[in-house]
Amino acid sequence: MTMKLHCFGESGHSYKVALTLALSSADWEPVFIDFFKGETRSEDYRANVNEMGEAPVLVDGDLKLSQSAVIQQYLSEKTGKFGGTSDAEKREILRWQIWDNHKLSGQVGMLRFLMNFLPEEKRPQEVIAFTTARVTAAYAVLDKHLAGRDWIVGDSITNADLTCCGYLYYPEPFGFDRADWPNIDAWLSRISAQPGWKHPYDLMPGNPSDRA
Amino acid sequence: MTMKLHCFGESGHSYKVALTLALSSADWEPVFIDFFKGETRSEDYRANVNEMGEAPVLVDGDLKLSQSAVIQQYLSEKTGKFGGTSDAEKREILRWQIWDNHKLSGQVGMLRFLMNFLPEEKRPQEVIAFTTARVTAAYAVLDKHLAGRDWIVGDSITNADLTCCGYLYYPEPFGFDRADWPNIDAWLSRISAQPGWKHPYDLMPGNPSDRA
Repeated sequence: MTMKLHCFGESGHSYKVALTLALSSADWEPVFIDFFKGETRSEDYRANVNEMGEAPVLVDGDLKLSQSAVIQQYLSEKTGKFGGTSDAEKREILRWQIWDNHKLSGQVGMLRFLMNFLPEEKRPQEVIAFTTARVTAAYAVLDKHLAGRDWIVGDSITNADLTCCGYLYYPEPFGFDRADWPNIDAWLSRISAQPGWKHPYDLMPGNPSDRA
Repeated sequence: MTMKLHCFGESGHSYKVALTLALSSADWEPVFIDFFKGETRSEDYRANVNEMGEAPVLVDGDLKLSQSAVIQQYLSEKTGKFGGTSDAEKREILRWQIWDNHKLSGQVGMLRFLMNFLPEEKRPQEVIAFTTARVTAAYAVLDKHLAGRDWIVGDSITNADLTCCGYLYYPEPFGFDRADWPNIDAWLSRISAQPGWKHPYDLMPGNPSDRA
């Protein structure tokens, strides 16, 4: 049965799952969420799709799952891919998934929204400067970890890579320039060289030009 | 062998693990991290304890684990407690752990730091107001979820409860008043009625009066 991913192109959290599905050659299709018209925050969405008011949500038959890391772990159990091969690797993958949701994607997603998708006069400049410093500290942790490694955990691509890259291919400014972080830069190229890789705006419906 | 938890009293992320250990009647002891003197951000700490520059870190023999959710999951495998009883419960627990790290404890911890532990003249008021709105949205999600339930997942206390309560017993202001959130209030009383429960400042070394 075709899995359905409730998602939208601008959502890096959705991209983590869409990319995991694409690289797994899974049978899936996207279901567009109109985030910019407030769909994820509506009473209907909270009541029927996700009480947390967030994307993505994966529907696989009777199963409905939210939080990208939960979905990635579920897909790994189903496909045998990207989930690590030992208890130590599984724990290390989860460690980076949590860190990413807290310190990297969690903050980058918010910062990119504030810097690009709010009307210019409503952008909170102090919040943007403060959050830019915090995401820069996160880029530094990741870049240092990747020194001398091809992948975040072990010897092959895992959900740790597929979570941490969630926002890093987007073209909009969010205090990130690949040229400043050579290890991240090389690692992003390694991921985008995987068979089946697509850019978020090519993998999911919805992108800023729709609202231009 | 006695497990060692690198932690400090003001850290709600550490408290999640310390409380899990306490309620499991595990054999453990705290190792004080001098966060307020910059210990977690030092080169030595990053090189030898946690490259992410964060607390807590659990050491169990040769094993060294970081990220509270990873440690909680490890402890559940070891003790058989708080980890859920089915695949569905395990996924639901992880879902709330990720949400907590991203939307609740992740933001509350930062907000409490800014509102209380920075010198008054250095407190970024726009960031505080912005983050207060975001944590209030998180309190609303949790309060609504707890309506008609005793515990976040299933019929007994799990790591989902022990992560989400991480910051909510602290006395300092962070935009949270138990009286505003009746379901959270009752649930916090349920947790603190568990045998072995202690307040964070009684369970871990270090508290604001040390620096007064």
